[in-house]
Amino acid sequence: MAPQESWNATVLVGQSGGPTAAINATLAGVFECAHQLGARVLGMRNGIEGVLAGRVVDLDGLLSDPLQLDLLRRTPASLLGSCRYKLPDPDGDTAPFERLFSRFETLGVDAVLYIGGNDSMDTIEKLARYGERAGSPIRFMGVPKTIDNDMVGTDHTPGYGSAAKFVACAVKEVARDSAAYFLKSVTVVEIMGRDAGWLTAASTLAGRPGAGGPDIILLPEAPLDVDAFVAAVEGLLEERDTVVVAASEGVVRADGEPLFRDESVGIDAFGHVATQSGVGRYLAALVKGRLGVKTRAVEFSTLQRCASHLASATDLEEASTLGGVAVQAAKDGCTGMVPVMRREHNRPYSVSYGLSAISAVANRVRPVPAEWIRPDGMGVTDEMREYVRPLIQGEAAPTFVEGLPWHLWLPEEDA
Amino acid sequence: MAPQESWNATVLVGQSGGPTAAINATLAGVFECAHQLGARVLGMRNGIEGVLAGRVVDLDGLLSDPLQLDLLRRTPASLLGSCRYKLPDPDGDTAPFERLFSRFETLGVDAVLYIGGNDSMDTIEKLARYGERAGSPIRFMGVPKTIDNDMVGTDHTPGYGSAAKFVACAVKEVARDSAAYFLKSVTVVEIMGRDAGWLTAASTLAGRPGAGGPDIILLPEAPLDVDAFVAAVEGLLEERDTVVVAASEGVVRADGEPLFRDESVGIDAFGHVATQSGVGRYLAALVKGRLGVKTRAVEFSTLQRCASHLASATDLEEASTLGGVAVQAAKDGCTGMVPVMRREHNRPYSVSYGLSAISAVANRVRPVPAEWIRPDGMGVTDEMREYVRPLIQGEAAPTFVEGLPWHLWLPEEDA
Repeated sequence: MAPQESWNATVLVGQSGGPTAAINATLAGVFECAHQLGARVLGMRNGIEGVLAGRVVDLDGLLSDPLQLDLLRRTPASLLGSCRYKLPDPDGDTAPFERLFSRFETLGVDAVLYIGGNDSMDTIEKLARYGERAGSPIRFMGVPKTIDNDMVGTDHTPGYGSAAKFVACAVKEVARDSAAYFLKSVTVVEIMGRDAGWLTAASTLAGRPGAGGPDIILLPEAPLDVDAFVAAVEGLLEERDTVVVAASEGVVRADGEPLFRDESVGIDAFGHVATQSGVGRYLAALVKGRLGVKTRAVEFSTLQRCASHLASATDLEEASTLGGVAVQAAKDGCTGMVPVMRREHNRPYSVSYGLSAISAVANRVRPVPAEWIRPDGMGVTDEMREYVRPLIQGEAAPTFVEGLPWHLWLPEEDA
Repeated sequence: MAPQESWNATVLVGQSGGPTAAINATLAGVFECAHQLGARVLGMRNGIEGVLAGRVVDLDGLLSDPLQLDLLRRTPASLLGSCRYKLPDPDGDTAPFERLFSRFETLGVDAVLYIGGNDSMDTIEKLARYGERAGSPIRFMGVPKTIDNDMVGTDHTPGYGSAAKFVACAVKEVARDSAAYFLKSVTVVEIMGRDAGWLTAASTLAGRPGAGGPDIILLPEAPLDVDAFVAAVEGLLEERDTVVVAASEGVVRADGEPLFRDESVGIDAFGHVATQSGVGRYLAALVKGRLGVKTRAVEFSTLQRCASHLASATDLEEASTLGGVAVQAAKDGCTGMVPVMRREHNRPYSVSYGLSAISAVANRVRPVPAEWIRPDGMGVTDEMREYVRPLIQGEAAPTFVEGLPWHLWLPEEDA
């Protein structure tokens, strides 16, 4: 390979949206590539919200140390902190853009990289659009991450593989636990994914039928006929003692309404279920009420997105590489783009990296294809298994100190 | 060492009570020791309930293969299945004892080993008592296991260390996730332990204050003053953005009543909370209602007892050794006994193994000592940290196949 031209630039990088086990691997990839090119790297504390508040940190001191960079790759959630700040349309209210670009100018920023999910792509798309109109030389690049895997234009998103690995492993273990007793029981595991069922579908890897895997898998893409569901559980209970159901938090009824708002059975008594849907508890109560068997609802909650102790090595590697691809693209003058992955082969698995216009991916959601869902809507096909299988391969063992994974913290938080 | 005398005997082993990540390591220790002594090993499917139903399996074929034995050590829940069958007092109803001893005689059993928690020790104590009275030559040995760590007469119980390691790691990761956002929030993690707070107390290892560990730890041993709790959370929120609370499912009010039955705030709408207490959701709702901050309740549910992918190597080693100690004791003619551990040193950590009469441990519960709980009842002391720290040391990585831990199954379940 030819030696790379150096890049005398300042790169400002931020993280946004829900944390994942891989978002810091992307940050590490961004830093490593930019640093090797000779660029200076600044970090936004809590995304653009932090930029507006003047909270920007110099990452060169901390991450030039290869041990710290390695710890960063294996640290869950977002080192820089996240935000959910939504920018207005730059065709209308330009005030926040003026403030942001003024900050960028003060900092001498040449490129802004924003690591995030669908909402964050919306942010970077607006920044790029405003910048272009204002004649700014700053390049704006998105870098994808989301455990939901619902971004269009890429084969999959970083963060999904690690979450899928944790979900499959945890379902396998919980199913094993449920099978220990000598009685009829139904365990309902609720898995994240409000609009798309990718993560719930990954539970199919937990085992062969009857030996640890979910017997029924319910996705938001397949509206649920509650009576058919109860009948299916009843039928399975005739064959075996233990039935395991993996249900997406976003499961809907045939009329498109969320499952858990059905007041005839009861919703959460506290009344504020903004972040916890209760689909698992609802289905467990339903089965217990109709069939009279022991039921248990299990939620993995935020652990499924931050369990970096069981991250997928494939996922972390790809997450890191995408960060570097975005830096290279910015260096090459790209703006308003996002690096994406294309699957070249499945066995053996390989991907290639490319770029897509952010405008083509922002504000869209990619569901699990209908043909990967079983005709009865209560399971997934071998195509879905083949799709997700390579993404959970390989272990990225944490650095254990005194029996627990060691994480990297920003120095000012280390007091 | 002198060569061991061989033991031409039949050992019947069973598992009972709630599954753990270490109960199969004990089974492996029992098998390995008995097999090496020349004894034949039979397994009860689902404990004494299975014996009564004639469900006994020969373990020699499966476990003589060292690879299978090794997989067994790292397989969660109970290979043989569990039960919760409660024997009557042998001074009253002798019918089930007569049936069981008739089965033992048919099988030619010389020793019965029962791996379980407090309830299972009650079972083995009754069997030993009946056997002694009936002049039976069969030896009855208990082998402890419980994630609750609430058994008297032993420094700690197998299963606790692995559950503690998972809880500490998961709390550390969830706390990291909670800290990602730039807003005031309170996360309440609910941890198993209805009568004793040992497992909840282990969350103290999750980090130094302000950097990942719980800010408040609530145990059943320290009745909760709800107003003082809310005030403490409010005070912490003045210092930091994110507060993490680790609450035992068994937290009680000052009057000894369970926290979550308070209908003035609302209990779970489904009405049947037998296995899921809702303490976490209750406290999250309480804080949100009183302080108006974002809250989230996280439950680790059964995962905390079966997450063998993050088992403590120390725990598995001790669990296995205790199984062997019980076999040796049975060979030596002991009955009505249970192997226990005594901590000889803490840094470096070492234990010695001994025996205790089951009658001295059955039907009793050991709470967290009052002096290991902070005077305000909302945290634990350094003594508690020093106690639990060695128990989570070392990793026992699973055998990963296609990205997931591989487990051992009994052949008949392998269809």
